[in-house]
Amino acid sequence: HARRWLVPMIAQTRHLRVPDWVEPCDKFLFRHIGPDPAEIQTMLRTCSFEDLDDMIAKAVPEDIRLRRTPHLDEPLTESEVLERLKQLGSRNQVFRSYIGMGYYGTLTPTAIKRNVLENPGWYTPYTPYQAEIAQGRMESLLNFQTMIQDLTSLPIANASLLDEATAGAEALSMCFSAHNHKRKMFLLDSRCHPQTEALVYTRAKYIGAKVIKQSWENFEFTSDVCGCLVQYPDTHGEIHNIDELVAKAHDAGALVACATDLLALTVMRSPGEFGADIAVGSAQRFGVPLGYGGPHAAFMSCTEKLIRRLPGRLIGVTRDTHGNRAYRLSLQTRENHIRRERATSNICTAQALLANMAAMYAVFHGPQGLKNIANRVHYMTSALADSIADCGHAVNNDYFFDTIKVTPVGLTQDHIMSRAHNLGINLRQYDDGDVGISLDETVTTSDLRDVMSIFTESGIMEDEDANARLSNLPRRRLGELERTSSFLTHPIFNKYHSETELMRYCKHLENKDISLVHSMIPLGSCTMKLNAATEMQPVTWPEFANIHPFAPPSQAQGFIELFEELARDLCAVTGYDAVSLQPNSGAQGEIAGMLAIRGYLESKGEGHRDVCLIPESAHGTNPATATMCGMRVAKVRVTKQGDIDMDHLREQCEKHKNNLAAIMITYPSTYGVFDESVREICETVHGYGAQVYLDGANMNAQMMLCRPGDYGSDVSHLNLHKTFCIPHGGGGPGMGPIGVKSHLAPFLPGHVMTAEGHKFRQVSASPYGSSLIMPISWSYIRMMGAEGLRMSSAVAILNANYMAHRLKDYYEVAFRGKRGCVAHEFIVSFAPFKKYGITCTDVAKRLQDYGFHSPTVSWPVPDSLMIEPTESESKDELDRYVDALIQIRHEIQEVMDGKYPQDDNVIVNAPHPQTFVLAEEWTRPYSREKAAYPVAFLKEGKTWPGCGRVDDAFGDKNLMCSCPPMDSYDA
Amino acid sequence: HARRWLVPMIAQTRHLRVPDWVEPCDKFLFRHIGPDPAEIQTMLRTCSFEDLDDMIAKAVPEDIRLRRTPHLDEPLTESEVLERLKQLGSRNQVFRSYIGMGYYGTLTPTAIKRNVLENPGWYTPYTPYQAEIAQGRMESLLNFQTMIQDLTSLPIANASLLDEATAGAEALSMCFSAHNHKRKMFLLDSRCHPQTEALVYTRAKYIGAKVIKQSWENFEFTSDVCGCLVQYPDTHGEIHNIDELVAKAHDAGALVACATDLLALTVMRSPGEFGADIAVGSAQRFGVPLGYGGPHAAFMSCTEKLIRRLPGRLIGVTRDTHGNRAYRLSLQTRENHIRRERATSNICTAQALLANMAAMYAVFHGPQGLKNIANRVHYMTSALADSIADCGHAVNNDYFFDTIKVTPVGLTQDHIMSRAHNLGINLRQYDDGDVGISLDETVTTSDLRDVMSIFTESGIMEDEDANARLSNLPRRRLGELERTSSFLTHPIFNKYHSETELMRYCKHLENKDISLVHSMIPLGSCTMKLNAATEMQPVTWPEFANIHPFAPPSQAQGFIELFEELARDLCAVTGYDAVSLQPNSGAQGEIAGMLAIRGYLESKGEGHRDVCLIPESAHGTNPATATMCGMRVAKVRVTKQGDIDMDHLREQCEKHKNNLAAIMITYPSTYGVFDESVREICETVHGYGAQVYLDGANMNAQMMLCRPGDYGSDVSHLNLHKTFCIPHGGGGPGMGPIGVKSHLAPFLPGHVMTAEGHKFRQVSASPYGSSLIMPISWSYIRMMGAEGLRMSSAVAILNANYMAHRLKDYYEVAFRGKRGCVAHEFIVSFAPFKKYGITCTDVAKRLQDYGFHSPTVSWPVPDSLMIEPTESESKDELDRYVDALIQIRHEIQEVMDGKYPQDDNVIVNAPHPQTFVLAEEWTRPYSREKAAYPVAFLKEGKTWPGCGRVDDAFGDKNLMCSCPPMDSYDA
Repeated sequence: HARRWLVPMIAQTRHLRVPDWVEPCDKFLFRHIGPDPAEIQTMLRTCSFEDLDDMIAKAVPEDIRLRRTPHLDEPLTESEVLERLKQLGSRNQVFRSYIGMGYYGTLTPTAIKRNVLENPGWYTPYTPYQAEIAQGRMESLLNFQTMIQDLTSLPIANASLLDEATAGAEALSMCFSAHNHKRKMFLLDSRCHPQTEALVYTRAKYIGAKVIKQSWENFEFTSDVCGCLVQYPDTHGEIHNIDELVAKAHDAGALVACATDLLALTVMRSPGEFGADIAVGSAQRFGVPLGYGGPHAAFMSCTEKLIRRLPGRLIGVTRDTHGNRAYRLSLQTRENHIRRERATSNICTAQALLANMAAMYAVFHGPQGLKNIANRVHYMTSALADSIADCGHAVNNDYFFDTIKVTPVGLTQDHIMSRAHNLGINLRQYDDGDVGISLDETVTTSDLRDVMSIFTESGIMEDEDANARLSNLPRRRLGELERTSSFLTHPIFNKYHSETELMRYCKHLENKDISLVHSMIPLGSCTMKLNAATEMQPVTWPEFANIHPFAPPSQAQGFIELFEELARDLCAVTGYDAVSLQPNSGAQGEIAGMLAIRGYLESKGEGHRDVCLIPESAHGTNPATATMCGMRVAKVRVTKQGDIDMDHLREQCEKHKNNLAAIMITYPSTYGVFDESVREICETVHGYGAQVYLDGANMNAQMMLCRPGDYGSDVSHLNLHKTFCIPHGGGGPGMGPIGVKSHLAPFLPGHVMTAEGHKFRQVSASPYGSSLIMPISWSYIRMMGAEGLRMSSAVAILNANYMAHRLKDYYEVAFRGKRGCVAHEFIVSFAPFKKYGITCTDVAKRLQDYGFHSPTVSWPVPDSLMIEPTESESKDELDRYVDALIQIRHEIQEVMDGKYPQDDNVIVNAPHPQTFVLAEEWTRPYSREKAAYPVAFLKEGKTWPGCGRVDDAFGDKNLMCSCPPMDSYDA
Repeated sequence: HARRWLVPMIAQTRHLRVPDWVEPCDKFLFRHIGPDPAEIQTMLRTCSFEDLDDMIAKAVPEDIRLRRTPHLDEPLTESEVLERLKQLGSRNQVFRSYIGMGYYGTLTPTAIKRNVLENPGWYTPYTPYQAEIAQGRMESLLNFQTMIQDLTSLPIANASLLDEATAGAEALSMCFSAHNHKRKMFLLDSRCHPQTEALVYTRAKYIGAKVIKQSWENFEFTSDVCGCLVQYPDTHGEIHNIDELVAKAHDAGALVACATDLLALTVMRSPGEFGADIAVGSAQRFGVPLGYGGPHAAFMSCTEKLIRRLPGRLIGVTRDTHGNRAYRLSLQTRENHIRRERATSNICTAQALLANMAAMYAVFHGPQGLKNIANRVHYMTSALADSIADCGHAVNNDYFFDTIKVTPVGLTQDHIMSRAHNLGINLRQYDDGDVGISLDETVTTSDLRDVMSIFTESGIMEDEDANARLSNLPRRRLGELERTSSFLTHPIFNKYHSETELMRYCKHLENKDISLVHSMIPLGSCTMKLNAATEMQPVTWPEFANIHPFAPPSQAQGFIELFEELARDLCAVTGYDAVSLQPNSGAQGEIAGMLAIRGYLESKGEGHRDVCLIPESAHGTNPATATMCGMRVAKVRVTKQGDIDMDHLREQCEKHKNNLAAIMITYPSTYGVFDESVREICETVHGYGAQVYLDGANMNAQMMLCRPGDYGSDVSHLNLHKTFCIPHGGGGPGMGPIGVKSHLAPFLPGHVMTAEGHKFRQVSASPYGSSLIMPISWSYIRMMGAEGLRMSSAVAILNANYMAHRLKDYYEVAFRGKRGCVAHEFIVSFAPFKKYGITCTDVAKRLQDYGFHSPTVSWPVPDSLMIEPTESESKDELDRYVDALIQIRHEIQEVMDGKYPQDDNVIVNAPHPQTFVLAEEWTRPYSREKAAYPVAFLKEGKTWPGCGRVDDAFGDKNLMCSCPPMDSYDA
């Protein structure tokens, strides 16, 4: 009986029983789930299911279905979860953190916090694949790219990377691949941040590169060296003139990558001015909260020559069909969803939301404002260095920007750390007894006095002494490295300096785009479900936002308790025994998972196993990841039904039996079906001594229905930004924790800054990845409870089946399970219409005219759309979307019937931007109204495409990846 | 030299001096001020001013100009002010408040908090006078009206009032005026909330009504009784069947007003079902935070017969020129800007933002959700009553909803209050030794256990005892008063129950409207300046939001410290000696000010003085207020220049010399000019023994330039929602504190719940009015400092002069000061174009096609627009607006030249909504593009009017003030 799915959740308040009649009224379940109980009944009836259990029985194979719902704590209401989060937050201690190491205090302008970070219009959109309804955020990402290019003086920059350490590893990969993997040596300066070092080692190991770590002054550029990485300013704060290094490297044909700091670059010579080929770093200190490690936007810029090796997203300028300027993702052929096992990076997501914040920070402050901040920080650091030196300590830096390394004299390191602790200040504690201090824009004169006081004999500094120290302008300590070149000269960075202007600019861009605040985004495999406002609250609470990732764990007890609960709950949902929260994207999760498999096999003396089976239908990241982990990829065919071809699987296992390491599968399959043979697949692979990696992309269809850990998988990553409600942010942040069975647990990621550090298995810069957004997933699970999660997956499946049912008389639903059900998503084929000149891409664009974001286009099956409605969409919204698709089917019919030409109809001409349908002249064979208002609800309010169809080929041919000159704005 | 205006602000950090080079980088000044220093220079040059001082010297009469800038604390940066607010907040203590008396704990759904209350798209728009670009928020206000109508079962409801007590006073006025002021007696039930009682007395006194307070059971409806007010449930929680009362009253031709509670009405018979004529109350508990007293939306509903006497805003349904449904403000002829001294209410603002929150709360919960909340509260109260009675105390209620009054037995009131205090609970402390308890939706079972425990002998209640008490469904205590009728049956209240749906509905409505997030709103006399995100932060912090207005002051120390600082600073800005923060709107401020004058005159034995001089050019509220305060209004003529006609002033003074009480003037004048004779006016009036009331509407032009308290005014109200940055919220909240010279200080408002209570001078329900929004103004002043405020006013004047200068060759700028300057606003005449069929209203509508909100239309001068740019608008935005007006001038010329017919051109047909310009057929003599894109910047993104021009006459003739049936949505 369906009703038992709808039993009200009972909240537990301390030890009081809560009878029905005092049940709280702000329960979350049916605020998250779109259809209400009555609509669920209607939809079940429409699909001829008896009830939800009947549907589950038909969709999910019997041999993997859970008999009992695993235990989670009873669900909390929205107000209860906020109270609990406040409690957890109160267990964190917000110190002033002058630890540095790539993470700095920053003042997020309140206008950016409110209008970007706390605004669902900015945090709920998807990666801008559908360029025409993503012009706003692409303009902002182009601002980010321009900012990085200007500050690093390199002509190309991508739209952000996961973190600085990952960017460092990507720099290694670029150098390595630029020499076609023939030069095996990579030189690493010993003064890089330790977490960057760790990721470079991790990355190098399995791609077959050899890292040599030494002072760059000692680098020997033999003919086997592909490149090098130096940090500028280095991790101890010292700044080096690397002119010579660059000359030496280039003479030897090696590349130079430089990890650097954006704020420093506003006053210091830039990597590009030294001649470096690649620059990497973090944009965190441009207004993005510390967040105990992330999410932040890292950056990477490079020379023109390297552009096709640049990982991640790249926004470019092109034109639309009407010849107007438009933005879109450039050079997608670089990306792993195209290159698959030939890809040198498995990166999918960027950190778009955080890159946009950083870009807005630069837009708001402008070049002079940034310089003012940098100068202030620099002078303060200089005054501090003088004060410390005057106290008799040794300041080890000749030249520096904001960071110094001090050898205490007359005081022990312990003494200093303890004085700092008593003042609520964190400093960097070096193993060699030194103390590191990095100042930042949050430092006030009284903060500075406090830091100075730590180093005086008495531990006290009177205000008048501080005044005296501050009365004269301190020396500049940049030596010969003062920046003389200008930057951020584009008008975008020089006109939005008042809050009114900034707010309007944020809103102007926001209102160009489609996000979840407008309509459903039914992207197959992407799970664009509700990102509830309650879940998002703690993200901007200072007690979570303002903690340095390397702060002592004693200051992060709230976070740690939350992580423990989250890991425990994720184990319960997946059936795994242990979880690592470190990977800060699905792609990093895959790496972490594959590294765990490799580590495990090596520990058993089976390190030679290096073949990874991957079905043809897999996500593009899977083969890319396997390759990055040094595996050879062997394909497994899928049947016409999208199931894995069991015969071929056995054949491949047999063929590779001596070297078989793993299989990577997705479940339910990327074809949107609960494959009947998943248990058999796992058993078969295990039979050959290999491990099963189950891509967790579709975990949202399985919660409390079946568990990978039960039916045979050894490891999965979990896309918290999909299944567990972290918003997509217009292309990041993501989070990809991995769950493993117990035998793999010893091989989970460690971190160089913690006891469990393991240099070859760290996958993110900070110990817990993007800590700041984990409260989102934690809140979701705590508010839904076990039955709620079960309901989530069930309604996700019901919504998909309902849409598939309503569409079946109009389109071919390409794949169904054995008992006629689709899973949580389904594929609609548009192949039959190709001969009439209409492709699924045309339909995707036409949907924009209906105010909708397209489903996933031509993946995993060409000429198809993959539709995933999620459980958060109401029946009304599903019907609206279905009605649009049906109406489009009628429009297709008109073309098929010859009513409109195949090359001139509403579909192939889509989308129709406002300026086009309002143009003086109208020469289309259909009316303007038919173009713009194909269904009545659009007249009540329509989100328009920001431009006509973008011309990708033109953009790639005429590559331009920075803000276009202002005069190009006049269409 | 202008530069001295631009001297950087120096922040003070403790006792440390802050040299230039460590000046903080997040100073607020040029984030608030639109033009940057370079643009200021350019604009000065354009206007031929030497510098800002030169401009001030030309704009502001020498004899009132300040010689020295009064002292304020040094400005804080954005981060410093947030830190200070956190400190202040930490001095507030958030108790669980079960005090009741019209204020209840509520759970603001996070989705509403984020998407409405924290969203500038919702909080920055203006009152919806320009209907076509305000359709979104008017739909929401119509939802509010429908909700009130349904719950009270009365056919007409307005779009909110200031607070419940004011609504009670307005009910008195309605009853009084319904009988043409001939029936003088008004019966007041003795069980109304004390603050309501106080406001009824205050209102009655000067309009000449006599209040008789007794139990309604004893009411005698003589022929002199105009009406009565009862509270249901009453202030002690008891509910009465008032069938008999209504019958008795109606038999005698008297009206019945009923103060009531929305949540109670979801389960109880409604005022309308009893036959009451008027219902009033507060919508606070529908999701609006307590906020130490406000702002909240009060409501008022009435019978059809009374509609033309209903005060406040009334949203109605009409059609636009294309015959489509549209919303607009109905029956504006009722309002005081039309009726002036004949008005019976001076109310201008509603509490639109809070009404919208309450409406969204009902939309989100739906009728069943609201009933669930009500039932839960009721059952809990019932269980509590049983538990208390079982402990031997006397529960004085036979029937109740959520409130009981308890006579302690065996425990003293002190004992109970002290136990409650120790548990962090506030109860109502009656003078008679009783204790009142009102439960609400926030109460959990453990809260309930805590309250129960207070009344046990031991002061303890074990969980198991509580469990036992809760194990059975308690008795319902509504007696025969159970509601049987349905409510909120309209689909709007039955489809947005998931967060996704609610969020999209909020955004859908937001995106229909123009607010400050889109473009400037240069409304003369309305000061639509920046409402900075930093200023808005504390509004949603629990330490400010969750405090009951009658909580002990010891729990509100942070608020009180902030109020003291704010009052001190307002004195410094105005030159007054004392400030009252109680008035929660400008209109209430006017009443408070006039009452202070009357009180003062009475204290001198001059209570007979009752003539108030008001210039013709005054705000409409002025005469209405004077009338409400029992004054006779005598007009003073103004010269053609807009100055007060001094001869006529003297004549009128002489004529009324025996009874002259006051003059009410506005400065700078409503004509946008610094009148030269203001000091002389004040002296003249003082010479006749009368007082000067200076309307503070234009205080934003005077800050630190001149002070009313210095040049002769005795009292002013200050529109915090204008000059001091509180957002307009789409038509409220407002705040209207008054400043007075010392002789009037003893006559400032008091409050019945505080020591200084004075029954005839209370003007708001809560002691400090809308406390929750005062941190906004406080933050603004603290971040700007004295020089910053001076800069605000100076740039406001400069911006106006710059626009006037650029427009002067195209339009006639109607009024200028003696030295050729306008003040902070100016009037452009459109009279010359009338003969070509073009009115200023047409131009106002045409501006919508340019994506702009119109300036103030035909006020104070007919056939004109009054433009006030404010200091927050950048030069770019001023230029964009000016360019639009110039382009419109060209369009006018085309009509004058006969190129387009006078009755069919882009101006008279404006605005042009999307659906119209995209219609199949196009029969206009101009192109669609000319209609929609008259200037190029619109193609980059345009905010469209939501409908064609609204038909006011049709709407008033076919009055409909609730949600239209769904089928009417198909255009």
